[in-house]
Amino acid sequence: MRIAIIGYGGVGKALVQLLVDKKHYLKSKSIDIQLNYVIGSRGGIYVPKGIECNDLAEFSKNEKDITKFIPGGSKEVNFDLVLRNGDVDAIIEMTPTNKETGEPGMSHITRALENKIHVITSNKGPILLAYKKLNKIAIKNNVQLAIGCTTGGALPSINGGIIDLAGSEITSIEGVLNGTTNFIINEMEEKACSYYDSLKKAQQLGIAETDPTLDVEGWDTASKLLILTNVLMNEEKTLKDIKVEGITNLKSKDVADALKEGKKYKLIGKTTRTVHGLEMNVKLEKLEKEHPLYGVNAKNKAVRYVSDTLGELTIIGGASGVTPAAASILRDLINIHRGYRDCSN
Amino acid sequence: MRIAIIGYGGVGKALVQLLVDKKHYLKSKSIDIQLNYVIGSRGGIYVPKGIECNDLAEFSKNEKDITKFIPGGSKEVNFDLVLRNGDVDAIIEMTPTNKETGEPGMSHITRALENKIHVITSNKGPILLAYKKLNKIAIKNNVQLAIGCTTGGALPSINGGIIDLAGSEITSIEGVLNGTTNFIINEMEEKACSYYDSLKKAQQLGIAETDPTLDVEGWDTASKLLILTNVLMNEEKTLKDIKVEGITNLKSKDVADALKEGKKYKLIGKTTRTVHGLEMNVKLEKLEKEHPLYGVNAKNKAVRYVSDTLGELTIIGGASGVTPAAASILRDLINIHRGYRDCSN
Repeated sequence: MRIAIIGYGGVGKALVQLLVDKKHYLKSKSIDIQLNYVIGSRGGIYVPKGIECNDLAEFSKNEKDITKFIPGGSKEVNFDLVLRNGDVDAIIEMTPTNKETGEPGMSHITRALENKIHVITSNKGPILLAYKKLNKIAIKNNVQLAIGCTTGGALPSINGGIIDLAGSEITSIEGVLNGTTNFIINEMEEKACSYYDSLKKAQQLGIAETDPTLDVEGWDTASKLLILTNVLMNEEKTLKDIKVEGITNLKSKDVADALKEGKKYKLIGKTTRTVHGLEMNVKLEKLEKEHPLYGVNAKNKAVRYVSDTLGELTIIGGASGVTPAAASILRDLINIHRGYRDCSN
Repeated sequence: MRIAIIGYGGVGKALVQLLVDKKHYLKSKSIDIQLNYVIGSRGGIYVPKGIECNDLAEFSKNEKDITKFIPGGSKEVNFDLVLRNGDVDAIIEMTPTNKETGEPGMSHITRALENKIHVITSNKGPILLAYKKLNKIAIKNNVQLAIGCTTGGALPSINGGIIDLAGSEITSIEGVLNGTTNFIINEMEEKACSYYDSLKKAQQLGIAETDPTLDVEGWDTASKLLILTNVLMNEEKTLKDIKVEGITNLKSKDVADALKEGKKYKLIGKTTRTVHGLEMNVKLEKLEKEHPLYGVNAKNKAVRYVSDTLGELTIIGGASGVTPAAASILRDLINIHRGYRDCSN
């Protein structure tokens, strides 16, 4: 399978390293992945017979400008060239997310699919804005649009809904979808500290960003919930349809009181189909220890589906970091290689 | 997709009912399933253009002898006819399990695969005895052998390992794999009753069988653990390689003492790869409330994988009963229809 990486940041580098580390494993499974292009913001690398991943992984440890990579690095190598040459089977779209326009990911994904190239993406923007439209283009061109990395990375939330519950109708989705907020709450529980002290620690550890707004005010959870809802419940909702609350008002006394009752706070994203239509919200909930999401600790994530014929399904996992995120990209790539296709929607 | 049901018991009947109930849903997903044969112990039904499932579901409510079904019922309709006619794409093998010889399932599965017919089975016998050999025949003939129903029915334990962890290597498998024993322990916790009172209740409710040996002495858990281990860790172990203990010696005092400590007993099947090789055992374990399997209550089941690149994955679910079991067969059928194939082993 010939691939192109579009957008070469932390996850892209981890993916190249993974292709090195998993070389023998992939070979033993008869999965042949050849990296023909890496496209960054200043240019790219193109080697028609495949970039030597080992060399690129070493190069990337010290050097940011991939146009200097030999052989194949050049300022002239860009996404247009990938399409013009027509020598890849799949692109990995990992450019920075823009939730207003979806660009440049939106154009990359659309054009690749129209050119009968599979797309695997970690880019939430285009998926939030236009999943249904993009998936229609994929189906029409008999290729796949794989989005596992957009809703929890290593947590197989999309696969869980599409493959593990195939033939069932999902009536509700509920999840601990953001590892950063879960870590912060966990710290408040274990250290009996304030929200701000806990946030500061998360920032020091590189778990929370300098501007943590998207995480702590619930918008990252809302984005993932929205994608899961639109994809798995066949909807076309937008972020405006979700009532969103974050964790910034959580007091250490609330956390301590809950612990005394044997309960734990979690930031829960939830979609329920009711007689009045779909209800979607993100808010703090106090879970009893019998609740399947009670044990989702630290940076872990989880999702719980209720279905008509296959009952309840709770999936807990989703190791954080660039390597698990890259591994979730590789997972999608292998499943496409195996021939899995969701052409039923 | 043209199918044959081989072995028409409770799950077979539930599957026919499901094909009735899900008719519009399947049509909306462009999944066309046509039931050409039902084969029972005394003969079968054959309708070249498809059996009317609605009529068969009604018929089966009162009548056991399917050879009386009109049109198509006959004592002359058998598995050989299915192969001779060559007019099905998949068989659903659901004959009674024999863990010594695997027959008659072993022959059905082997011959179907050799005739380039997909196989979906709920029959543990042949899978316990010869999964690797059977899957090689499937790969050679470019068809699928789907076994999701053999390791927890609605619980997507096999999918979880193959698809959700694609590209990862599984280093340990741990699960609450038997709903009956989990129900019995749960009753002992909630009613503070003895093992025997709890077993009696499970039998009255039809959850435990009249002879509960396979469940309560741990052999059902061991069988499922063995299949998961051989399939997902690429092994060829047998039941003799597993150290098996059941729940029959569990005392109500032990259960009460554990609850006081905030812990719960679970019958855990576990495979771990160690420096000395594979360790496999089934035994009662006392879990803390932070353990991901702590919240697996009543008839629920769960499995937890540890992998190299995708971290931990815990899957909780698996509604019990014939309908969820049939729904797990339908799930495998739909995933085969979608084109998913695991040809990588």
